[in-house]
Amino acid sequence: MKALIIDSAGLNLREIQPPPLASGECRISVRLAGICRTDLELAKGYMNFSGTPGHEFVGTVAFGEDRLVGRRVVGEINAACGNCAACRSGLGRHCANRSVLGIYNRAGAFAETVDLPIQNLLTVPDTISDEDAVFVEPLAAALEIFEQIHVPPGSRMLVIGDGKLGLLIAQVCAYYGHRVTLFGRHEKKLALARRWNVEAVPSADNENPRSQESRFPFVIECTGTPAALNLALSWTAPRGALVLKSTYAPSDPPKLDWAKIVIDEIQIVGSRCGPFAPALRLLATGKIDVRCLIDHRKTLEEAVEAFELAGRKGALKVLMRNGDFNR
Amino acid sequence: MKALIIDSAGLNLREIQPPPLASGECRISVRLAGICRTDLELAKGYMNFSGTPGHEFVGTVAFGEDRLVGRRVVGEINAACGNCAACRSGLGRHCANRSVLGIYNRAGAFAETVDLPIQNLLTVPDTISDEDAVFVEPLAAALEIFEQIHVPPGSRMLVIGDGKLGLLIAQVCAYYGHRVTLFGRHEKKLALARRWNVEAVPSADNENPRSQESRFPFVIECTGTPAALNLALSWTAPRGALVLKSTYAPSDPPKLDWAKIVIDEIQIVGSRCGPFAPALRLLATGKIDVRCLIDHRKTLEEAVEAFELAGRKGALKVLMRNGDFNR
Repeated sequence: MKALIIDSAGLNLREIQPPPLASGECRISVRLAGICRTDLELAKGYMNFSGTPGHEFVGTVAFGEDRLVGRRVVGEINAACGNCAACRSGLGRHCANRSVLGIYNRAGAFAETVDLPIQNLLTVPDTISDEDAVFVEPLAAALEIFEQIHVPPGSRMLVIGDGKLGLLIAQVCAYYGHRVTLFGRHEKKLALARRWNVEAVPSADNENPRSQESRFPFVIECTGTPAALNLALSWTAPRGALVLKSTYAPSDPPKLDWAKIVIDEIQIVGSRCGPFAPALRLLATGKIDVRCLIDHRKTLEEAVEAFELAGRKGALKVLMRNGDFNR
Repeated sequence: MKALIIDSAGLNLREIQPPPLASGECRISVRLAGICRTDLELAKGYMNFSGTPGHEFVGTVAFGEDRLVGRRVVGEINAACGNCAACRSGLGRHCANRSVLGIYNRAGAFAETVDLPIQNLLTVPDTISDEDAVFVEPLAAALEIFEQIHVPPGSRMLVIGDGKLGLLIAQVCAYYGHRVTLFGRHEKKLALARRWNVEAVPSADNENPRSQESRFPFVIECTGTPAALNLALSWTAPRGALVLKSTYAPSDPPKLDWAKIVIDEIQIVGSRCGPFAPALRLLATGKIDVRCLIDHRKTLEEAVEAFELAGRKGALKVLMRNGDFNR
């Protein structure tokens, strides 16, 4: 089958032999897959990744579990052992022995087929299109914020960064009825956010809040830039929560004002993957506009070009379709 | 009156004129005061402090509010404006316009008298001795952890640092029925902690946990050493909380592995002053042993020597009594 491969030769589409299907897993024909910032980082060497990336997908089960064959599915990206302390306490996403789809020890979805454990799969209702369903993973990552911290109704929330995830998070927060401000660099994206009743403000990186009262009880850092961490901290109110949605390469850790964190009793909350079932339910409402986040529609054959497009400054979501499936 | 003064001449006991009493405040004759690590840092130049330090005290109201005159009191150290957004939301301890007793814009308790707003004062029941009552501020700081985060019964908690605050926190956590481990450097203090059913382990700074399962869902960092922050992080379980009880000088901020914080979804919680009323109630039970934390009993006249003793490696609490009051 065709698969996108990252290795010492860089990023290439290759013809490969699919491995034998592992026990307890399904093989899924990938219909549509999305390129995430993490994929771009993996292609640049993050985590010394080699193999097939891709963790945002919707597909059709080809074989592995009779009741699922022919069904359209999405899949939780963390494949857990089910036996460790994290798994036993319901935190399979933090399983010590996990593999992660297209990220760690598991081939990803930028290929004709992808394998996942049966318990990772969720069937997609017919009312949800492929182009909506492929956003279930980033939408789950947005919902993860609300898994981790309690945000009372109508809270003032600041989202920093108008990339794909920042926009999606701003939209979800506004949908929930919070009072959302977005700092961003791209007028086109800020205009998009204003559609959702988000107060969208051009970034001014070095601008600090004028007063304690203008700081926010909830700040979500989505820029992916280490330097933004200090800006985010300066905007977080005393006793407020600063949620980090970007992973930073350890080679360039930002230095923070720790005294401020203690004196203002700020919570810094690392936040990663989220719950798929609630994200699917939210997509089923039809009220979350994810298609406006699509910049380009390509095919798997055009994967290398798709990565190039996704890596351009200000790019939003680039999707890759497998030729066999209709839109 | 006699007062300890930090200024360009260093740390000296001086005879000074008390300022006129501000409206809405009481003047309190200090009975007993305790030296905290923050006081030692202020004497070394932290926050460019000048004036009289001291924020742990118990005293008798001399004048300012008739119903309180002659009563024994302790006092919340943050004097709030009552009007700002923080105050209106019940967070007076984070008032943007606050002064802080013996720390910021307000003369402290290492003097014959100290002034505080009436609403900051809590009367001390007769069943609580001066030597217990003087610990209300650090005990409140320990309770602040439970104000900020939810710790389910019987949780595994790791306290790093066997200083005064670390020992008090370990004791309170064990009193609440949690399973507490303490990392410390002083066998005498570790032995003290074992009395409270704390698993007390000699520190091994460079030792990382053997497995994910040996990490703790709750880690309290009390060493005051920036380098310990990375050790504390390595011991925090995925989705766990790392509570910071030490303020670090901004000149030497520790560098953290931010990718780990995001991937493991760790919460870092800055934690400072706590609620006085619950701390007084806990002292009234007689079940919290604070006297075992007293290393030296001195008088205000011996303040400079008391600071020297408090600054010695491994020192626990040094108290200063005003001559006028009996034990």
